[in-house]
Amino acid sequence: MSKQGNGAFSANDRNRVRRGLKRASYDKKLAYDIIDSHFLCHVAFEVNGQPYVIPTSHWREGNRLYWHGSSKSMMIRHLAQGNPATVAVTQLDGLVLARSAFNTSVNYRSVVAYGKPRLVEDDGAFKYHMERFFEMLAPGRWPQLRPMTETERKATGLLEMEIEDASAKVRADPPGDGDEASYPVWAGVVPISMRQHAPDVAPEGEAAPLSHGLLDAYKL
Amino acid sequence: MSKQGNGAFSANDRNRVRRGLKRASYDKKLAYDIIDSHFLCHVAFEVNGQPYVIPTSHWREGNRLYWHGSSKSMMIRHLAQGNPATVAVTQLDGLVLARSAFNTSVNYRSVVAYGKPRLVEDDGAFKYHMERFFEMLAPGRWPQLRPMTETERKATGLLEMEIEDASAKVRADPPGDGDEASYPVWAGVVPISMRQHAPDVAPEGEAAPLSHGLLDAYKL
Repeated sequence: MSKQGNGAFSANDRNRVRRGLKRASYDKKLAYDIIDSHFLCHVAFEVNGQPYVIPTSHWREGNRLYWHGSSKSMMIRHLAQGNPATVAVTQLDGLVLARSAFNTSVNYRSVVAYGKPRLVEDDGAFKYHMERFFEMLAPGRWPQLRPMTETERKATGLLEMEIEDASAKVRADPPGDGDEASYPVWAGVVPISMRQHAPDVAPEGEAAPLSHGLLDAYKL
Repeated sequence: MSKQGNGAFSANDRNRVRRGLKRASYDKKLAYDIIDSHFLCHVAFEVNGQPYVIPTSHWREGNRLYWHGSSKSMMIRHLAQGNPATVAVTQLDGLVLARSAFNTSVNYRSVVAYGKPRLVEDDGAFKYHMERFFEMLAPGRWPQLRPMTETERKATGLLEMEIEDASAKVRADPPGDGDEASYPVWAGVVPISMRQHAPDVAPEGEAAPLSHGLLDAYKL
């Protein structure tokens, strides 16, 4: 699956996949598709040698990742200063039960992206990107919402990270048991997926109908 | 939800939750329950100021986290040297559609745990912990598997991390719209969960029946 050149991130010491090479890719389209398949990511950063990792919601435009949080949070403040971040987006697709412990695995799609975020300070850009995020989650909902106040705007830190480099890894196969396929134990894949359920309406929430297309972008 | 004392991790500069305090807990039992609710975690570490984050499978015994990988992988080699790791376990439970962008949120359960892993070198301990992992994934399966070879044992690095401190965050509520509940837009929660599907049997995999209890420990 490995691929470089046009439409691919260049592999370097940071993003080069060293183990499980046949699962690795530097293809940008594949990375973007995985990034777009979920709104949950994990953002890692370090402060004085101490690693941190925080789950949050992300979205993408072109080669840039976006996420937001309290403007006073340690993560936003630290990353707004130009410190490096590494962002993982992971989709778990199945448990792969092989005939040996060693070949037991999971099916998954994952991307790890590297960059140095910056704070989006321009109000127009801020609003544009927040609206795009809502357009992914619930198309048509943004203009229905009670508009953001100046206090809320100030309390929200929006980060933008140009993806300097990234790598994707995908496993989507049956057990890799090679010539041991006749070993007498059940083998196969237990598929795992996320799904959305029927919405729970909030108190007084039926004042207006629910928009269509909720979470459709993620194919949950 | 904040709680300290017996049965709780002490809060310090590293694990203290600074934002969303009412969602935070240092209770060990809650943290362990969340850790045990999934086998997917994200491990963060840093090398020369560069943060890394890698999705992998984990399990727990008492106050220790375990995960494994190729003994030659950068993560295993780096962390076997006593460098700090931070591990996040995150369960996404729903999208919370509030009446404003600001109050829009997600329901989730998450733990971030801090420590310094060490390599499990003793063969007896290695086998014991690997068997426990399999007992979580698929009870009764370990003794059915083709036994691990010496080459496979050497190729597998098993890390053990005493949890020095941790914090949990949980949101499991309807939209927090306060006195804006009459704003005329649908509001509520779209529940999200993981589920397992019927297994896909591998070629020749029906040589033996599938064990019962697959992934039951995780309540997918």
